Amino acid sequence: MEYVTGVSKKETVEISEILSGDFEGKQVKVNGAVHTIRDMGEVAFVILRKREGLLQCVFEEGKTKFDLKELKEASTIEVEGTVRAEHRAPNGFEVRLDTIRVLSEPAEQLPFAISKWKLPTTLETNLDHRAIALRNVRERAKFRIQEGVVRGFRDFLYSEGFTEIHTPKIGAKSAEGGANLFRLEYFHRPAVLQQSPQFYKQMMVGVFDRVFETAPVFRAEKHNTKRHLNEYTSLDFEMGYIDGFEDIMAMETGFLQYTVKLLERDYAKELKMLGVTLPNVEQIPAVRFDEAKQKVAEKYHRQIRNPYDLEPEEEALIGQYYKEECGADFVFVTHYPSKKRPFYAMDDPADPTYTLSFDLLYHGLEITTGGQRIHDYQMLLDKIEKRGMTTEGMEQYLAVFKYGMPPHGGLGIGLERLTMKLVGEDNVRETTLFPRDLSRLEP
Amino acid sequence: MEYVTGVSKKETVEISEILSGDFEGKQVKVNGAVHTIRDMGEVAFVILRKREGLLQCVFEEGKTKFDLKELKEASTIEVEGTVRAEHRAPNGFEVRLDTIRVLSEPAEQLPFAISKWKLPTTLETNLDHRAIALRNVRERAKFRIQEGVVRGFRDFLYSEGFTEIHTPKIGAKSAEGGANLFRLEYFHRPAVLQQSPQFYKQMMVGVFDRVFETAPVFRAEKHNTKRHLNEYTSLDFEMGYIDGFEDIMAMETGFLQYTVKLLERDYAKELKMLGVTLPNVEQIPAVRFDEAKQKVAEKYHRQIRNPYDLEPEEEALIGQYYKEECGADFVFVTHYPSKKRPFYAMDDPADPTYTLSFDLLYHGLEITTGGQRIHDYQMLLDKIEKRGMTTEGMEQYLAVFKYGMPPHGGLGIGLERLTMKLVGEDNVRETTLFPRDLSRLEP
Repeated sequence: MEYVTGVSKKETVEISEILSGDFEGKQVKVNGAVHTIRDMGEVAFVILRKREGLLQCVFEEGKTKFDLKELKEASTIEVEGTVRAEHRAPNGFEVRLDTIRVLSEPAEQLPFAISKWKLPTTLETNLDHRAIALRNVRERAKFRIQEGVVRGFRDFLYSEGFTEIHTPKIGAKSAEGGANLFRLEYFHRPAVLQQSPQFYKQMMVGVFDRVFETAPVFRAEKHNTKRHLNEYTSLDFEMGYIDGFEDIMAMETGFLQYTVKLLERDYAKELKMLGVTLPNVEQIPAVRFDEAKQKVAEKYHRQIRNPYDLEPEEEALIGQYYKEECGADFVFVTHYPSKKRPFYAMDDPADPTYTLSFDLLYHGLEITTGGQRIHDYQMLLDKIEKRGMTTEGMEQYLAVFKYGMPPHGGLGIGLERLTMKLVGEDNVRETTLFPRDLSRLEP
Repeated sequence: MEYVTGVSKKETVEISEILSGDFEGKQVKVNGAVHTIRDMGEVAFVILRKREGLLQCVFEEGKTKFDLKELKEASTIEVEGTVRAEHRAPNGFEVRLDTIRVLSEPAEQLPFAISKWKLPTTLETNLDHRAIALRNVRERAKFRIQEGVVRGFRDFLYSEGFTEIHTPKIGAKSAEGGANLFRLEYFHRPAVLQQSPQFYKQMMVGVFDRVFETAPVFRAEKHNTKRHLNEYTSLDFEMGYIDGFEDIMAMETGFLQYTVKLLERDYAKELKMLGVTLPNVEQIPAVRFDEAKQKVAEKYHRQIRNPYDLEPEEEALIGQYYKEECGADFVFVTHYPSKKRPFYAMDDPADPTYTLSFDLLYHGLEITTGGQRIHDYQMLLDKIEKRGMTTEGMEQYLAVFKYGMPPHGGLGIGLERLTMKLVGEDNVRETTLFPRDLSRLEP
């Protein structure tokens, strides 16, 4: 019998260790995938792709003990060599190769050149060969930034006293928006996939006061736009003992401020690679729905067609307006009309045709919907009745209100949309590892 | 127009602030839910439930400006009063009440006394009224510990160079284990819910070298046991450039060591409340499958009925054996028979009837399955053919191997099972917020 005692240091070194300078002139062992080979005759540059980036290795005819003809792009290898400072190498260091050991070889040549700076494919081809296309360093950088956003969300909320929860994605049919649900059979009973953790996170406010979840949600919407997916990752939080929905907006602003700092600190390499300018999150303007509509109509000479909803073009113009008027990347649009918000939204006591709710627009695209919720049992029952809805299937949800709930509110952020805007893409599929849409169920 | 500038300090204080001692003798404002009221005549103890715990407030007839008869359990309130050191109060401090303001009131009395130390209900009743039962402080403590486990997993893996990924849960039917899949209709096409992120995390090893995901998985198994759920949270990682499956076990041990320290540091209150003794993770024995079977058969005079599989009772006895022989809480059982492992498991070159794989048992219960995977394209095709399987639906998965993959392996950890064992429960539903099983689709 043997004992496992934990992670021990590997013989192989990582790029950040080489860049520290401590290894200059020293012999190192490194592994990675052969990203590309540039054969210059006497020497060849073997570029290794590793998790931290690319590493320039120099093959020297006669010195490196290996036949270069035997080395294929997309092989994985382990090499030994000497670290040298070289100002023409990326980040100033390269490895002069002594030996190469092949760990694995591809069976075929790659279908397209993933080593190009920009992937030479259409989005469709990219998505059809997704797991290969993502090996391109700029493609994968987007998902490192996405990681930073989720980390920022969680770390910030932990620090604000939130508890992380995991709620079920399969459920019995509930009353919240029936048309957009995926249906499945659950041991001979009808079931649906949750379109949001809304009911569960509210229930958990009665337990932990403040909760969050980062998990997939499912929408069976027959949209085919650049900004919709049928499965996406939702960053959700819900908090009790609020003084108003302004507390929710303040918490989201805090998250954005924290995350921008986190990205600057830990994801600088990826931001630089993608040429990202981080947004201004010091102060985010908040404007009423009706006021925003009016301002945009006036400035851009646009007729208001539907006073109860914002069209995508109107959202874009609101983004443009606040960018032009006060350099804002984000805008909170508040007080959405009650008829366009779910039954659990708290109506504004000052004018119940509006709600104490908001959307957050990022360069004119909605990335968040949030607001204060109704916490009073009778008020909730009244609103359900007024809307002609049934309470069937909502007994457990309603019970938490029956047995007392604090004033509360929360929001949901679409991770892929937020990432898309951060990295400057205009199709949400670009920032989704394996998108699900009307036509795409694979890979 | 106004600006939102981030989170500002609230007027209300939290329990940890009161316990710091800085507020002794001072006037504070606090909010929370009325957990219970103990009326002693001249004074009454109003126990507030807040996210950080319970707070003893003292109502004094004539001094506190409020009619105690108006105060209901399960109301949420905001109070003002003076902090006093009081050794009989939990944690040594209490608040002498001046005023009480009711934020919300319940419509009905609670169906059972959630303020009891141990919830006076059966598990069935608990689950039927889940969102209410979880308001019990010991019930909710389990899920704080669960949070600590997930935090530990993520933070440790970030520090080891892993990238977090989000893979789709809806997919086309793939070849991995067809019987246990939930089926749904996806815009008039057949689809399934993923039973693990296995294929995706392997694909992503070709991109980031090391990846992890913490997300729900779905198993349509008709089990009805204390340790099975039909939806659970899986902690998955996959890492490339391994020297062998021992690297995976080392990484898991590192995670456990890190997490035990994290729990000791940040979740001490909850551990104490549940009387948890954290497991020994300094060194974890690793024993071969056949050897473990043999040892248990000898020591406990048990006949080996099936040489290719471990029965639950055998797993329990292996746990007992290593607890008795070397005080171990965990045991790695390695080299499972090939016929009991999926096609992508790497067979042991020394004896291909066994695999380079393992399970981790915690007090005799399997909480992890992992191992080295096949990374060679032809080897993978050969094994698929040998098993009489089809490659249909696996084209994208197989493509990553066609275009080169490093030696790699990984594992999946059942979060609810690990939490169950940590807190000393014996039914996985006790450590699942809203369980899904054969009979339970709600709440």
